Amino acid sequence: MHVLIDVSFIPLGVGLSLSPYVAACERVFTDAKLTTRLHAYGTNVEGEWDEVFAALKRCHEVLHEMGAPRVSAIIKAGTRTDRAQSLDDKVKSVTDKL
Amino acid sequence: MHVLIDVSFIPLGVGLSLSPYVAACERVFTDAKLTTRLHAYGTNVEGEWDEVFAALKRCHEVLHEMGAPRVSAIIKAGTRTDRAQSLDDKVKSVTDKL
Amino acid sequence: MHVLIDVSFIPLGVGLSLSPYVAACERVFTDAKLTTRLHAYGTNVEGEWDEVFAALKRCHEVLHEMGAPRVSAIIKAGTRTDRAQSLDDKVKSVTDKL
Amino acid sequence: MHVLIDVSFIPLGVGLSLSPYVAACERVFTDAKLTTRLHAYGTNVEGEWDEVFAALKRCHEVLHEMGAPRVSAIIKAGTRTDRAQSLDDKVKSVTDKL
Repeated sequence: MHVLIDVSFIPLGVGLSLSPYVAACERVFTDAKLTTRLHAYGTNVEGEWDEVFAALKRCHEVLHEMGAPRVSAIIKAGTRTDRAQSLDDKVKSVTDKL
Repeated sequence: MHVLIDVSFIPLGVGLSLSPYVAACERVFTDAKLTTRLHAYGTNVEGEWDEVFAALKRCHEVLHEMGAPRVSAIIKAGTRTDRAQSLDDKVKSVTDKL
Repeated sequence: MHVLIDVSFIPLGVGLSLSPYVAACERVFTDAKLTTRLHAYGTNVEGEWDEVFAALKRCHEVLHEMGAPRVSAIIKAGTRTDRAQSLDDKVKSVTDKL
Repeated sequence: MHVLIDVSFIPLGVGLSLSPYVAACERVFTDAKLTTRLHAYGTNVEGEWDEVFAALKRCHEVLHEMGAPRVSAIIKAGTRTDRAQSLDDKVKSVTDKL
């Protein structure tokens, strides 16, 4: 099952600068050979369900290893059976109508 | 790794009444012996990471089987290494301060 | 325009215990005479759009006044024109099908 | 109070193609002279709190006028008092660490 997700991570108990933690997760996704698109409020990720969610779990583990005692993730996950759709397809379907 | 999540499912292409789909997911979580708390905008679920996310994936599959061509999930996931905390602990920590 | 929302607040830079901040927001909603339902991952709130969102803004201000240099909110907002629906109606429509 | 948000709209009861509705909201933000960044799972918006949330309310109204009987929005809102930060600053703080 193919899935498109958006995820933002919020480590707690590590102060105000979260970017080192977000960057560490980006590397987790890249190491897993998943397609990603970073934006100011999270990252879009595309791939097979099991691979995407294994990477998500790995992000929680990595952030705890980096010293964050609490890690929250906000995830949007979308699956569809009517047709194939990539992250770029989704953006293009909107920009074509602007 | 223990996880507390909140999840709401939005099946698309099935009209305006989503409650049969939400109820079907509740049964998936119950069948998986996970602790749940239903509210007006989703369900809190508590358990081991792999079991909770296997049930989430199963919900997507069940909703597609019920006829929804698109299924979106909004998920909040929280893990912590400093101490154990249940869903009921989280609510009590707030109500104690009201 | 009537709206049902779910909101969770995450103050950053104040350590690991967020419940005093969540409780402060509960009081903001109560002072605004809005109907609320607390759960382990946020609060459901029901009311007129302008009153609900004025209270949300007030929560950000109160959390900053309490010392949080960063405040994030995750909000789900739902409006419908086909029929009236309360928070309790939404829960009942699911539990009736279990 | 300056705010950075991320928002995704899900109109219900209008079938599977949501892009005309997402495009209509993009125009609402553009007409309000707000800075936006579109991605595959929503739109980042930057501005003063009252202007940003007035545009969000207008999006709900416009989607109902276009025929959607139910409109859901998923919103992340962030405010900070320690320093000014733009949408582009947020992305750069992560990419600098990759």
